[in-house]
Amino acid sequence: MVDSSNGTLRVAVAGASGYAGGEVLRLLLEHPEYRRGRLEIGALTAGSNAGAPLGSLQPHLHPLAGRVLTATTVDELAGHDVVFLGLPHGQSAALANTLPESTVIIDCGADFRLHDAAAWQRWYGGEHAGTWPYGLPELGDNREQLRGARRIAVPGCYPTVASLALAPAFAAGLAEPNATVVAVSGTSGAGRKLDVGLLGSEVMGSARAYGIAGAHRHTPEIAQNLSAAAGTPVAVSFTPVLAPMPRGILATCTAPTTADLAEVRATYEKAYAAEPFVHLLPEGALPSTGAVLGSNAVTLQVAVDTDAGLLVVVGAIDNLTKGTAGAAVQSMNLAVGFDETAGLPTVGVAP
Amino acid sequence: MVDSSNGTLRVAVAGASGYAGGEVLRLLLEHPEYRRGRLEIGALTAGSNAGAPLGSLQPHLHPLAGRVLTATTVDELAGHDVVFLGLPHGQSAALANTLPESTVIIDCGADFRLHDAAAWQRWYGGEHAGTWPYGLPELGDNREQLRGARRIAVPGCYPTVASLALAPAFAAGLAEPNATVVAVSGTSGAGRKLDVGLLGSEVMGSARAYGIAGAHRHTPEIAQNLSAAAGTPVAVSFTPVLAPMPRGILATCTAPTTADLAEVRATYEKAYAAEPFVHLLPEGALPSTGAVLGSNAVTLQVAVDTDAGLLVVVGAIDNLTKGTAGAAVQSMNLAVGFDETAGLPTVGVAP
Amino acid sequence: MVDSSNGTLRVAVAGASGYAGGEVLRLLLEHPEYRRGRLEIGALTAGSNAGAPLGSLQPHLHPLAGRVLTATTVDELAGHDVVFLGLPHGQSAALANTLPESTVIIDCGADFRLHDAAAWQRWYGGEHAGTWPYGLPELGDNREQLRGARRIAVPGCYPTVASLALAPAFAAGLAEPNATVVAVSGTSGAGRKLDVGLLGSEVMGSARAYGIAGAHRHTPEIAQNLSAAAGTPVAVSFTPVLAPMPRGILATCTAPTTADLAEVRATYEKAYAAEPFVHLLPEGALPSTGAVLGSNAVTLQVAVDTDAGLLVVVGAIDNLTKGTAGAAVQSMNLAVGFDETAGLPTVGVAP
Amino acid sequence: MVDSSNGTLRVAVAGASGYAGGEVLRLLLEHPEYRRGRLEIGALTAGSNAGAPLGSLQPHLHPLAGRVLTATTVDELAGHDVVFLGLPHGQSAALANTLPESTVIIDCGADFRLHDAAAWQRWYGGEHAGTWPYGLPELGDNREQLRGARRIAVPGCYPTVASLALAPAFAAGLAEPNATVVAVSGTSGAGRKLDVGLLGSEVMGSARAYGIAGAHRHTPEIAQNLSAAAGTPVAVSFTPVLAPMPRGILATCTAPTTADLAEVRATYEKAYAAEPFVHLLPEGALPSTGAVLGSNAVTLQVAVDTDAGLLVVVGAIDNLTKGTAGAAVQSMNLAVGFDETAGLPTVGVAP
Repeated sequence: MVDSSNGTLRVAVAGASGYAGGEVLRLLLEHPEYRRGRLEIGALTAGSNAGAPLGSLQPHLHPLAGRVLTATTVDELAGHDVVFLGLPHGQSAALANTLPESTVIIDCGADFRLHDAAAWQRWYGGEHAGTWPYGLPELGDNREQLRGARRIAVPGCYPTVASLALAPAFAAGLAEPNATVVAVSGTSGAGRKLDVGLLGSEVMGSARAYGIAGAHRHTPEIAQNLSAAAGTPVAVSFTPVLAPMPRGILATCTAPTTADLAEVRATYEKAYAAEPFVHLLPEGALPSTGAVLGSNAVTLQVAVDTDAGLLVVVGAIDNLTKGTAGAAVQSMNLAVGFDETAGLPTVGVAP
Repeated sequence: MVDSSNGTLRVAVAGASGYAGGEVLRLLLEHPEYRRGRLEIGALTAGSNAGAPLGSLQPHLHPLAGRVLTATTVDELAGHDVVFLGLPHGQSAALANTLPESTVIIDCGADFRLHDAAAWQRWYGGEHAGTWPYGLPELGDNREQLRGARRIAVPGCYPTVASLALAPAFAAGLAEPNATVVAVSGTSGAGRKLDVGLLGSEVMGSARAYGIAGAHRHTPEIAQNLSAAAGTPVAVSFTPVLAPMPRGILATCTAPTTADLAEVRATYEKAYAAEPFVHLLPEGALPSTGAVLGSNAVTLQVAVDTDAGLLVVVGAIDNLTKGTAGAAVQSMNLAVGFDETAGLPTVGVAP
Repeated sequence: MVDSSNGTLRVAVAGASGYAGGEVLRLLLEHPEYRRGRLEIGALTAGSNAGAPLGSLQPHLHPLAGRVLTATTVDELAGHDVVFLGLPHGQSAALANTLPESTVIIDCGADFRLHDAAAWQRWYGGEHAGTWPYGLPELGDNREQLRGARRIAVPGCYPTVASLALAPAFAAGLAEPNATVVAVSGTSGAGRKLDVGLLGSEVMGSARAYGIAGAHRHTPEIAQNLSAAAGTPVAVSFTPVLAPMPRGILATCTAPTTADLAEVRATYEKAYAAEPFVHLLPEGALPSTGAVLGSNAVTLQVAVDTDAGLLVVVGAIDNLTKGTAGAAVQSMNLAVGFDETAGLPTVGVAP
Repeated sequence: MVDSSNGTLRVAVAGASGYAGGEVLRLLLEHPEYRRGRLEIGALTAGSNAGAPLGSLQPHLHPLAGRVLTATTVDELAGHDVVFLGLPHGQSAALANTLPESTVIIDCGADFRLHDAAAWQRWYGGEHAGTWPYGLPELGDNREQLRGARRIAVPGCYPTVASLALAPAFAAGLAEPNATVVAVSGTSGAGRKLDVGLLGSEVMGSARAYGIAGAHRHTPEIAQNLSAAAGTPVAVSFTPVLAPMPRGILATCTAPTTADLAEVRATYEKAYAAEPFVHLLPEGALPSTGAVLGSNAVTLQVAVDTDAGLLVVVGAIDNLTKGTAGAAVQSMNLAVGFDETAGLPTVGVAP
């Protein structure tokens, strides 16, 4: 448990006017520790939106409507036990380095996700800031590293679902190290960015690819996770597709296999049997993003295409919840000693 | 508090494969009393879907995925402290009459909403079953009637928002008894009905009116509520419009007025100052259904169109939450002695 | 017929990167006179997008993908027989005044729609530029004024449907001069504007009101049209609602009446019997925007709410086609002597 | 040219109440030969909808609103020069065999697409009815076979885009015979079927996979086309994903390659240089379904993922237009001697 002076955890959110920050706040406001007064929402900071009331930017966060956003500075963020960062990439390191080591810093951005400095430079440019414990408790020994951690890198949304979809197969040696991921995403994954291509008039009724042939920055993060699971480098082809919905990722992930379906199912059942948020669906059922909307749930289905010699795993998450803020709160829970599942909806908002 | 044998409230849901039943279950699964073991989910019944696992019909309700739906019979529903009914209208009375008087029965259907038997016959046909305490605690003395109640009629979704939007003005004598309501609704308001006009291909990208010129059955319920507030009969013109979204109602409600805006605002501020779920937005802000999605919140904005001599009140709710299942759970909380707000999200799932 | 030097009509579009300009071009590219070489698409101009290839901004206009946008200047627009203007309001007059009188100028903006200079100043600010023949051939003597016209003001999208919905009743003295219009619109009505509230993530799954209580600038234009039909001032209350769809307006229009339905239907049948684009639906059918998508069609249904003493008329149009660019092309056809319906789809793109 | 008695082509549509039939009619109503009276719309037949006016089922087809659907029988369809069939699979052969050989029969269903009777039996069950000229003029020698043809099998929607996306690479020997296709589709692809999973409430805001691991019947058709192009059997893994939009397919197609991008682009540019409907987009641009909505256009972009050693081709079509009814009309044009592009929009309805 974080040692806060008065037994109440004080939490700040930097980037509170963005989608990641807003979703962190949504979850915190319904968190049982907040409701019982043991978690307090402190500074809410923003970039160009500083000075505005939160209610004008995040009208769904009624209980905080009157709170005024302040500037994202070290001074504003100091004096908190936990600081969530929802900032453009490249901005987290400077802040993190000047906050006390005892502060739990949970970065929803990309700065501290990659191990490989060269990969960082190739995909993001600029100097690599370092690597922090990775907020995906379901993979490898991440859960152990997150308990009591003071610095946490929240995974990217696509890597979350793609990694959970394929890691068990690679870890069990059931697939060749060659993954193809085509993932359909809701538009909130692009952030609250003023871009003509993200206007409602443009996205509604239309699907489009973007960042094809390895152009998307989540490619090396997926490869890092799958290679760690496989114990050998896994080549990843990743194509993101924008679909006309605000939230959700539906990923179709394939890799060559000679395994049969029974073996694959047994492997996945075992891998996720104890996981509270990952659900291998019954045979015949298929994941939909609607069924996990607003929740921290991950749904998976596995299949083997024997004609094509491919393992096919389809996975669904809410990109803002399990894909970002849910993972952030789940990581906070582990870091400060709360119940891992506290404040994280397991039930989607459907229909 | 309901006197259950072992201190645990046993709850059944009839119509668990429908949208109302599913939303009741979503809320119950996240209800703090469920999480602490003092509320138990018992029988889940259905009509033609009896025999199917809940997971095949409500895949978002992961924790209950394996539960099998049973037939909606008195035997199945007996032995519960609370029974939610999400049935086609006309079916509630027979069940209710054979369950013990001590059972809390919460009817999400229309059977027991209207006082006027003649109105019932005109709009629904068949014999009027009676009138139960009305599950809209924010209006009149409903809250007092709901405390400890054993029979509760959950309001219709449109009447919920239209009544909350206009009742304060009528109660304060600020408007002439002539209301026009045009309300845009998501498609789940029509229920999980196999109807060509409700297919995704037909509704996406399209708005359409239905039930115009007093054809919609919610008209007399709105009139009943507004007339009670006004203390005089209020004529109501109601037009529902179907919009391409799964959830939400955005109602534009007008009535002739000579009052000025300051007087109107003061009246509404006072009317809802103590209400946990009703929010009069700051001047300049306007309700959106997105900001209340999945929550029990109601947002309102008031304006006076001085050229036209009209009070204009716009209100937003989630038709499945505050408009149906949220009101049902809020009513249950009052009936059994839980905290009124327990298990009811105040924060919308946005974006 | 416009007297062009070589028998080919040369057409320019100013504001070709916007939604209005894009829709004008979509219609021109499928126009039979374009296909047979008697209409030529000349200058395509833009503001900040000048210099970009059209294909990067309007990727649906394949045949013009390689055309480069030039700046919106008098020089660029000179030498054309027809100039469509899709510009922010206030910018049309200066251009129009320097182009030859013989040029057919068709303004999709608001500058020349209102007769009343005081109303212009109140709603738009700045000096009133004047009044041009009004591009709604179905009302009054507009069609006659449009034949051979050299200056044309295209109606606003909301006024188009609201006026067609109520004018026959007012013209026949069937309704009291008090109109309430609540109109649900797709997001393209707001133009291609970089505004957080218009991002896909914000609009999808959400309906919201804007510009309530007479705040929307289309209010005086609706009042002008209805007052002309009634021969007496009509008070108009107008509430626009944004719905999650790219196109379409569904307007619910009411006014007090003592007429009966038969009289109303007869009046509307007669009013639109000869109109190629206005369809009074059979009894029982109701307009949907999906059924008129991409077309120049207007669908109407009339009803009388006898309890409330109201005439209720529901109308649907595509805001970009009949609501803007379709009316512009229809007006061009009349102005230059083409068949009035040429190049205007009568069939919606559904589902 | 079909030899019709009076110079007017008489066309019937069987299945006129479905989406394929409705789209055929939409295109015919705007077809220049219809407008000039050389194409006449005769019998409109349906199954369970026989007896209903077309306007009650296809309200967008205003000019035919009063036409009454008749039963789909040989008698009804006799006496037409062209018969479009939009029927459930398995029903076309019986009808086709009893109509005169001189009738142009254009089957939008699957019955006559596959060459391999064993594949037909495996994927569809029942006896294989035969193989007809394949309505995809852009591939192989199909165009020649379609000129003057009297029996035509319209391709499936997914095979249309997947085949156009990958055939040039296979034909040029640029890719190994191992294709992975993940295609996002609008809901109209599933037809006008009363299925809970296709209700608007279920599909809006949600993406879901269906028919994974080779379960979808379009798999063998894709393989047939690509194998023909490659001259060797191509293994195909196909995953369809349902997205919340009424129309459109966005397909991401990959195959192993060692070619470089310049070679690939040159191959595709050459392959489609003369095609009126297939557009290889400029480098940097990516296909979207919105830009081809309602049109017969196909947009493609090619890329090489050098890390993964994969050719990535993304393609977009409107599943109802180029994917079904557009191909049907394009085939009719070739069969009867009209201009191939007549009546086929080249411009999408956007935004």
